[in-house]
Amino acid sequence: MKLAPLALAALLAASSLSATTLPPPVDVGAAADMALDSDTIAWDFVEGITTEVGPRQAGTEAEKRGRDWAVAWLKRTGFANVADEPYQMPTWVPGEVHKAEILSPFPQPLVIQPLGGSASTGPDGITAEVVEFETVDALRAAPAGSLAGKIAYVSHSMTPTQDGSQYGFAGAARWVAAGIAASKGAVATVIKSVGTDYHRNPHTGGTSFPEGVAPTPAGALSLPDAANLERMFDRANGEPIRMKLTLTPRDLGTTTSGNVVGEIVGRDPSLPPVLVACHIDSWWNGTGAFDDGAGCGIVAAAAKHVATVGQPLRTIRVLMAGAEETGLWGSRAYSAAHIDEPIAVGLESDFGADRVWQFESNFREANPDLHARVASAVARFGVSNGTGIASGGADINIARDQKTAIIDLSQDGTRYFDLHHTPDDTLDKIDPEQLRQNVAVWTQVVGILANEPEPILPR
Amino acid sequence: MKLAPLALAALLAASSLSATTLPPPVDVGAAADMALDSDTIAWDFVEGITTEVGPRQAGTEAEKRGRDWAVAWLKRTGFANVADEPYQMPTWVPGEVHKAEILSPFPQPLVIQPLGGSASTGPDGITAEVVEFETVDALRAAPAGSLAGKIAYVSHSMTPTQDGSQYGFAGAARWVAAGIAASKGAVATVIKSVGTDYHRNPHTGGTSFPEGVAPTPAGALSLPDAANLERMFDRANGEPIRMKLTLTPRDLGTTTSGNVVGEIVGRDPSLPPVLVACHIDSWWNGTGAFDDGAGCGIVAAAAKHVATVGQPLRTIRVLMAGAEETGLWGSRAYSAAHIDEPIAVGLESDFGADRVWQFESNFREANPDLHARVASAVARFGVSNGTGIASGGADINIARDQKTAIIDLSQDGTRYFDLHHTPDDTLDKIDPEQLRQNVAVWTQVVGILANEPEPILPR
Repeated sequence: MKLAPLALAALLAASSLSATTLPPPVDVGAAADMALDSDTIAWDFVEGITTEVGPRQAGTEAEKRGRDWAVAWLKRTGFANVADEPYQMPTWVPGEVHKAEILSPFPQPLVIQPLGGSASTGPDGITAEVVEFETVDALRAAPAGSLAGKIAYVSHSMTPTQDGSQYGFAGAARWVAAGIAASKGAVATVIKSVGTDYHRNPHTGGTSFPEGVAPTPAGALSLPDAANLERMFDRANGEPIRMKLTLTPRDLGTTTSGNVVGEIVGRDPSLPPVLVACHIDSWWNGTGAFDDGAGCGIVAAAAKHVATVGQPLRTIRVLMAGAEETGLWGSRAYSAAHIDEPIAVGLESDFGADRVWQFESNFREANPDLHARVASAVARFGVSNGTGIASGGADINIARDQKTAIIDLSQDGTRYFDLHHTPDDTLDKIDPEQLRQNVAVWTQVVGILANEPEPILPR
Repeated sequence: MKLAPLALAALLAASSLSATTLPPPVDVGAAADMALDSDTIAWDFVEGITTEVGPRQAGTEAEKRGRDWAVAWLKRTGFANVADEPYQMPTWVPGEVHKAEILSPFPQPLVIQPLGGSASTGPDGITAEVVEFETVDALRAAPAGSLAGKIAYVSHSMTPTQDGSQYGFAGAARWVAAGIAASKGAVATVIKSVGTDYHRNPHTGGTSFPEGVAPTPAGALSLPDAANLERMFDRANGEPIRMKLTLTPRDLGTTTSGNVVGEIVGRDPSLPPVLVACHIDSWWNGTGAFDDGAGCGIVAAAAKHVATVGQPLRTIRVLMAGAEETGLWGSRAYSAAHIDEPIAVGLESDFGADRVWQFESNFREANPDLHARVASAVARFGVSNGTGIASGGADINIARDQKTAIIDLSQDGTRYFDLHHTPDDTLDKIDPEQLRQNVAVWTQVVGILANEPEPILPR
């Protein structure tokens, strides 16, 4: 599977570096091959943080333990300039009681968890009739005030997609339904989990309420429980379905969170660095393996593998952003703090640990040579040259804010929404072979970028 | 797929019935074909009871609602002599709080549920060091008193098997480990779930304590949580692992449970009936779809299908036993109450809803003709003639007590222990096509037995 290494000597000869400063050519392909064969760095990170820390809810002491763990790991693994850069954020925690009980006509408990941003029902819960909406649009069409005193149930469904694109469609049920229902008088909102599995594990995630609409309790039923509730509507013959809902999340006010950073220092510190990002926090209910312990393991492993074949020209900066899940607090704080320190290119790994299948950049037209070189170099890993324009993800706000180069390495998302934001996001879900392919592709791409002497997105 | 019907006329001609009482031949094969093509009865039962009742913990009002629901369903579906036959039993309930928290060295919550028969830790929980045993035998080998003040953790593992036979090996961890650990001074026992899945859903089930050993708290971790705990042992470098365990089950004392029965009445009430059994109760954490709503649907559907092609010679009695899970209370009460009313043969469906793949009887030698006729009739459904001796299951104690004929129709158990005794035992796990195959095989077999004029197990 090993191909001819990139003709880096030729590349460097054409560059602005003088011949006297040229180091020996860096064989990035060899580093990527090594990662594919035998990477243990990414696994070590994700096994370690899920086992020794576990859940890392944004803004809490558990996230702090996660950051401390990552700082120690980065230092131990040989990164320089390791730091935990603090920022302030509003912190929400899920509380202890998460219950949904059908009282009539078919009494039984359903498995539910609160959405991030949900208000509390109080420990005694609230009881109300449930009104079903099959889509977010159907909920939008409900007359003003028509949900007064009711619990809205939104059964908007999700289909698995390799590129994860249905999240935009299906995610709306989580992002906005509770706010819409609250604005029409609903006392609470319950949604079918935005997910594609069939296990008794709800998918949480953030929801938000429009300006001027007081937050209500909001929770997600597991998919089997949602199906059960829908069968109850079919069988109730119009009799009201009454639910007792008890969710006790709390707002903790402002707390300190942080962004963990570390570097592989390049030979030329005057050149803007390559930024590779992930997020360190997770929802409380899982251990943050797929989302996003794996991503942090992948980007850090790639940076390390690049360094094994020679110090790169540019610095590779790893950003393990805090508090992504509850509102990109870390990514935004990082951009605000570092906006005047140009980066060359931003890449993020935040979509699980399955195989990379597509490469896209935002410099296909501006720098066709580099785009083609990267595309050519990752082809041997089964990664296609996509036709879209990379826009990056949640953890690289700074790349969008600075309007820098961005690369997207698309991971296979077919099973991502089986696990996303659920208790089932645990280490056993990670396939070591796919994880190694991921690290290999990242090593190849980051290695090319970090050894690129020319501007990556020329102006 | 339709084959020539059984030569029932010839069969009946050879029987002890006089020619003048002979009805038209009953085409059992046609009934089985119809079930395979289009059975809706079994699905209707299991969808109905899981949706309209849900969990049916033995001895509780939820089981009572399940029995009431089944009584109404049997009457509505055309069964005669429908009854709920009461008996008394000791009733255990799981309580509300089920928590396991690692306090050090790697603080994080683990997902746990109590085993049936577990004592309570009290609401404040207990905290102790965890000691790991890889097998039940390793636990047995621990010196007397060596577990004083400790929590025993048993990581005994299970492998999926088509015939379910590993349950005997792996189940020991659940059945006896807590009792062994308690006898050596342990304050509590935690086991790896006896299961084969990888979801965050513990497998509960009964445990028991030897005479003279006071019950302790006992719980099962989900498989991912068990794996996480085992990694903690690997990473702790000998530092003690301390767990806070909070389980609050309760004994309710003696309550009333019941066995639901109903009949397809045969033409000759003087002949002993065919008994087809399942159990109506389930553990509290799932909805009792695979275990054993499906079984009740299958046996009732088969009885009904047999009747569609002509009143059978023998009565077919359906027994939906109560309180199987917590100690076969219903099956034993049924046997005690009906021990003087001979049955001809007993069959049970209590192993999920997947395909039947093997037929065995306990009359292969005593009644080779009938054994061969049944084996031949089910071959077209892909059901082989096994080489073992049928011994029946938990719900047909009466067949063993009366030493009657028994038939085992083995279902594919490859994924049974993914779902067994977990929250994930829900309707969506049932494959309608496999369920219909199951009903078809049962219809074929019950139809032959119910129209058999000769003694089934000759003495």
